[in-house]
Amino acid sequence: MPLDPAPLDAVLARIDASLDPALDRLMAFLRIPSISTDPAFNADVDRAADWLVAELQSLGAEASKRPTPGHPMVVGHLGEGKPHLLFYGHYDVQPVDPLNLWHRDPFDPAIEDTDKGRVIRARGAADDKGQLMTFLEACRAIIAEQGALPCRVTFFFEGEEESGSPSLIPYLHAHGDELRADLALICDTGLYDHDTPSIATQLRGLLAEEVTITAANKDLHSGSFGGIAINPIRVLTRALAAMHDDTGRVTLDEFYDDVPELPDAQRGQWQALAFDHAGFLGDVGLSLPAGEQDRTPLEMIWSRPTAEVNGIWGGYTGDGFKTVLPSKASAKVSFRLVGQQDPDKIHAAFVKHIESFLPPDCTAAFPMGRGAGASVMSIDNPAFEQARRALSAEWPRPAVFAGCGGSIPVAGHFQSILGMDVILAGWGKDDDQIHSPNEKYDLRSFHKGIRSWARVLDALAKA
Amino acid sequence: MPLDPAPLDAVLARIDASLDPALDRLMAFLRIPSISTDPAFNADVDRAADWLVAELQSLGAEASKRPTPGHPMVVGHLGEGKPHLLFYGHYDVQPVDPLNLWHRDPFDPAIEDTDKGRVIRARGAADDKGQLMTFLEACRAIIAEQGALPCRVTFFFEGEEESGSPSLIPYLHAHGDELRADLALICDTGLYDHDTPSIATQLRGLLAEEVTITAANKDLHSGSFGGIAINPIRVLTRALAAMHDDTGRVTLDEFYDDVPELPDAQRGQWQALAFDHAGFLGDVGLSLPAGEQDRTPLEMIWSRPTAEVNGIWGGYTGDGFKTVLPSKASAKVSFRLVGQQDPDKIHAAFVKHIESFLPPDCTAAFPMGRGAGASVMSIDNPAFEQARRALSAEWPRPAVFAGCGGSIPVAGHFQSILGMDVILAGWGKDDDQIHSPNEKYDLRSFHKGIRSWARVLDALAKA
Repeated sequence: MPLDPAPLDAVLARIDASLDPALDRLMAFLRIPSISTDPAFNADVDRAADWLVAELQSLGAEASKRPTPGHPMVVGHLGEGKPHLLFYGHYDVQPVDPLNLWHRDPFDPAIEDTDKGRVIRARGAADDKGQLMTFLEACRAIIAEQGALPCRVTFFFEGEEESGSPSLIPYLHAHGDELRADLALICDTGLYDHDTPSIATQLRGLLAEEVTITAANKDLHSGSFGGIAINPIRVLTRALAAMHDDTGRVTLDEFYDDVPELPDAQRGQWQALAFDHAGFLGDVGLSLPAGEQDRTPLEMIWSRPTAEVNGIWGGYTGDGFKTVLPSKASAKVSFRLVGQQDPDKIHAAFVKHIESFLPPDCTAAFPMGRGAGASVMSIDNPAFEQARRALSAEWPRPAVFAGCGGSIPVAGHFQSILGMDVILAGWGKDDDQIHSPNEKYDLRSFHKGIRSWARVLDALAKA
Repeated sequence: MPLDPAPLDAVLARIDASLDPALDRLMAFLRIPSISTDPAFNADVDRAADWLVAELQSLGAEASKRPTPGHPMVVGHLGEGKPHLLFYGHYDVQPVDPLNLWHRDPFDPAIEDTDKGRVIRARGAADDKGQLMTFLEACRAIIAEQGALPCRVTFFFEGEEESGSPSLIPYLHAHGDELRADLALICDTGLYDHDTPSIATQLRGLLAEEVTITAANKDLHSGSFGGIAINPIRVLTRALAAMHDDTGRVTLDEFYDDVPELPDAQRGQWQALAFDHAGFLGDVGLSLPAGEQDRTPLEMIWSRPTAEVNGIWGGYTGDGFKTVLPSKASAKVSFRLVGQQDPDKIHAAFVKHIESFLPPDCTAAFPMGRGAGASVMSIDNPAFEQARRALSAEWPRPAVFAGCGGSIPVAGHFQSILGMDVILAGWGKDDDQIHSPNEKYDLRSFHKGIRSWARVLDALAKA
């Protein structure tokens, strides 16, 4: 039951006319501090799931919260007809620290005027509540205008995305029959640039691990023990420092074995994008690409693997000074994976690397070790080109098939476990400060994002 | 007016008989959380100074709190006759974190039975309230028995020792005439071992600095920026890791230029001590001396300089995982100095070392840079041998002249600014966990420490 051009225009007009109530709904969603990584917020995560269930029910969907060993999934079904689409988003958000760097309460959202336009300021505004809501609001406008969606949609919302999605794979295996559709849509990525939408067809994987080095069985005083007792911070810094060579290359054994070279066609396409790395870095106060020095900036963020220390701590870190030799030192380390890099193999190489720096008096613990490999989408499915054209009609410049430096492991799981193609489209921007203080989502992203999904649904249902 | 042998015995007997009220006074002192490094405790630091003033007045001393730009000094005068002694201790204590590793409230002191004997458990029990009180209680017993001290004593108590003593040098310059005496006594060091008292004649200096590396102007998401944006943790770990070579030697430029070799006589004396480094390290769960591999364990802690990272932090350090590329990474670094090593010169070498690792997009800040050089006492003054004999009479084994790995900068300042010789004696033990959770002071240290000072005062006044 495809929409014809006139109804699409009516839907778009309705979206324009009803932006305020749409924003009110998003604000209510953003007020729920659904931080999935911190057990102190467990009740809030649950409340966000309930809120989504009610939201889906208000669209007429059959929807419910589905328990997992961790935070619940939210699943809903609405509409009839081909293609059957599975829409994914996540309702959990990142932690907010350091809180003092926020210029307002992260869970008291507001519309702010900035020199780059109006933005919605709140934790989760861009990642992923604002994005998720662009799809729901598109559905709401279509239903209001047409009485029904043009095709069958299954909604699937996760509450553990920022916690490494521990329940996702078992859930997909157990409930594949309910979730499997003709095509998956994921709204958790960004525009290529302010005027150019992007469908991400190449996503890096992610392996995250924490390492704790333990030396003495208690903190020691460096006056008594300094010089004779091994300092675990020294061991940790030596091991972490040696993860990269002077050219920015990762030194773990066989790290690059399963990293493919970029196909020439892809390289040409990316070169044509004329990526402004100086502007990209300049926005955050940097100037020089810091990755492998023989790679282009776009390769560094889209197609090359990385090793990064995301957090490090040990010893006395408060005000003043304490001449302690700590018992322990820890770091959180993550690897962005590409091509056929196997998270388990990279994890083993990381453990071996750290252990090679351990003196006999030290031990190392690795409590996490979760990861997912990279995803590459085949764009043979004509839905990709249909979606690309639909997006090109909404935005000033034509949509591109692009890489994505971030990791959306669920895309790979939809491919491998459910056997579905996945279209990743989203309206985030590089300056949204997701995972950072003062996260925002452009009002324009929210508005044109809703319009974009209305166009995509229209295009896919018509095909 | 020296005590003759019979009165000394009477004083010692009185000390034995009145240990309980002495302990009560110490407990009251320990209940005051006088953490000088944390402004939240400023009122408590002040309260500890008031407590000491009252304590000195209860001995009959003229005593008062003396303002400084930071925490106050406490100065008191008592007694007459030669020699005029200046006694120094500090009434401030280290911070208590990590608080969860304490098995009791650090400021709710208690006597505990342990498998190594009875201990006084509290922050400051050993460093330095318990030690300071051994001297005051010796004075109290002498006065109770004799009516007066055998010589003139000036008391000088500091409240900023754990904060790097920012007011000390100006205060000594301004009030040298009041404080200058024939000899200084400092009680802030330890026994050589359980049965062997020690007079510390060689103390390492200390230079403390904090370094913060700043890269991007905000925290970044490693999905968007990982691989292209420089990570300040990578810069910091590389710079810190390179501070030592593979043999444990510090790599800063000219670091060892002003480090003297141990005189043969000293080396022989130290070898005679047959230091049990396996036991020393075994007590804290270690086995291998981790300093310069061509040095003996006793040299590592007494006569060789060190570079240690006492704290490191950056990025996300909470529960779970956050794939952030932080804007900043920081470390607290300290150097134990020996011989003629100049804190300013070492500081400059440290800054140069860190800066040599800075890529163009990063900056480094060094906010502190305070230090004091090492101290070496000349033991030609006969008071040293008088004190050594007095201590030998109290403890199972004869007292030794020893090195000290810790830094007692005030000793050097008494030498250089006031022109005084300094006797450092104290009753702490290596397992006292000063600066760590569950700090304790042996009840035996407290008791025999009081007796030791009574003997030393007797010996010095008789000479």
